[in-house]
Amino acid sequence: MDIILKHRSIRKYKSIEPEDEKISKILEAASRASTTGSMQVYSIVVTKDKEIRKQLWDSHFKQDMVLQAPVHLTFCADFNRFSKWCEQRSAKPGYDNYLSFLTGAIDALLAAQNAALAAEALGLGICYLGTVTWMADRFIEILKLPQLVVPVAALTIGYPDENPNLTPRLPVEGIVHQEVYSDYSPEDIDAIYQSLENMSETKQIIEENKQETLAQVFTLNRYKKADNQFFSQKFLNTLTQQGFMNNNED
Amino acid sequence: MDIILKHRSIRKYKSIEPEDEKISKILEAASRASTTGSMQVYSIVVTKDKEIRKQLWDSHFKQDMVLQAPVHLTFCADFNRFSKWCEQRSAKPGYDNYLSFLTGAIDALLAAQNAALAAEALGLGICYLGTVTWMADRFIEILKLPQLVVPVAALTIGYPDENPNLTPRLPVEGIVHQEVYSDYSPEDIDAIYQSLENMSETKQIIEENKQETLAQVFTLNRYKKADNQFFSQKFLNTLTQQGFMNNNED
Repeated sequence: MDIILKHRSIRKYKSIEPEDEKISKILEAASRASTTGSMQVYSIVVTKDKEIRKQLWDSHFKQDMVLQAPVHLTFCADFNRFSKWCEQRSAKPGYDNYLSFLTGAIDALLAAQNAALAAEALGLGICYLGTVTWMADRFIEILKLPQLVVPVAALTIGYPDENPNLTPRLPVEGIVHQEVYSDYSPEDIDAIYQSLENMSETKQIIEENKQETLAQVFTLNRYKKADNQFFSQKFLNTLTQQGFMNNNED
Repeated sequence: MDIILKHRSIRKYKSIEPEDEKISKILEAASRASTTGSMQVYSIVVTKDKEIRKQLWDSHFKQDMVLQAPVHLTFCADFNRFSKWCEQRSAKPGYDNYLSFLTGAIDALLAAQNAALAAEALGLGICYLGTVTWMADRFIEILKLPQLVVPVAALTIGYPDENPNLTPRLPVEGIVHQEVYSDYSPEDIDAIYQSLENMSETKQIIEENKQETLAQVFTLNRYKKADNQFFSQKFLNTLTQQGFMNNNED
C-alpha cells in the first residue's frame, strides 16, 4: 500500500542495469494480474538492446528517459498466441474484432500496472509513455509485432537518478461518485481544480507556455484537438491493419 | 509484492460491509496511479445501494457475486469533467475523439488495478467483471453516465467467503519476448499450453462442455465469434453515442 501511495514517475535513471532476478520478479508479478477468462491475451516485450532502444526513443518523441533507462517494457494486446493455439487444437478462433482488441488491452494494462508496482517495490523507478498509442504503427515495425498484436502501454525501468515530489492529484472526491454519476456544476469544477490552479508550479507552467489558464496549456500546447483527431484515425487504422476490425459477420 | 503474487479472484463474499475507511484507502490508492499528462481523465462510481446493485447484477449477466459483494466499483474513461473545466477556463476542449477515449481507458484501468491491489492488501477480495464492456450501454443508463464517460472496468469488493487456489497461468516465458517479438512455432504453442492442458480441472471442463479440446470450449462455448462481433459493434456504437468518435476535422 505504501508503494502505491508513494508512486512518482522517474525520468532520470542511473546507467547501472537492474539485476536479471528483479526483471524476472517484475514479469512474474505482471503475469499474476487478473485476465479475462484466464486467457492471458497480452504479451510483454522486454527491450534492453541499445540500438533497438534508440529506435524506440526516436518514436517516443525522443524523450530522454527512453534512452537512459536500461530496460524498456512494451505491453501489447495479443490474440496471436491464443488464435494460433486454437488453430492447433481443432478450434476456429473468432478474435479478429474490436472487442477482442479491447479485451487484450485491458489484460495488458492490468499486467502493466502490476509490473510497475513490482518494480517500485524492488527499489526501481518507472515511467509510463503515453506516446505508445500515438505511434503504435512505428512500435509494431520496430518490435516486429504480428497480426492481432497491438501495443497499449510502455514502461521505462531503471534505478532512479532523481527523487521528485509526488505529482499533485485532484481531491479524491473530485473523481469519485457515490451510487451513480453526479454531473459537475460550475462550482464543483472550481472546487476540484482550485488547489492545482493555486500552486506556484502551475502559474509557472502557464507563464512558460504564454497562456492565461492551465486548461489552455492543455488545449493549445499539450493535447490539441487536431493532434488528437490525427492520432485517433492513425490508431484506428492500425487496429484495421493488425486485423482487429473485422466486426461484421462474414 | 506478496499481495500481487497471491491474487485470486473472489466470487463468494460475506454479507458484512467493508469499513468506510478501507473504501477511502482503496479510492486514494486508485487516485495515485500514473495518469496521462496528470489529467486524471477517469471517474470511479462506488455503488453500495442494493436496488442499484440489483440492476448492475442483471446487466452483468446475473453473476451471483455482483449481488453478494457489498461494494461495486465502476471505472470509467471520463473526459466530461476535464472538458467542463476547459470550458470554464477560456479553453476549447478537443477530446471528443477515439484517442481521448483510449487515453481515459488507460488511466481508468491503471487506477482500477491499484484499487484491486489496495483492497487485497486490506484483507478484502475482488473480482473483475469482463461484462462491463459487453454491456457498456446498460451501465451508462443505470449509473447515469453523461457524454464523454464510458465504463471500462468493474470490480466487486467485499470480505471473502471462500479461499480458492491460485488460478493457473501460462509459463512466464510464454508471454514474454526478449528484445523484439518472436512469433510462436507450433512447438512453442504446444510447450506453452502443455501444463494447462494436462490439469485434471481442464479435462473436466472439456467434458462438461462436451468438447474435444480446451480451445473449443473457448471458441464454441465461452467467447464465440458471432458474440464477439456483436459486442464489438455494440461497443463502437456506444463510443459514438457517448461522443468519442468525432475523429475528423470539422
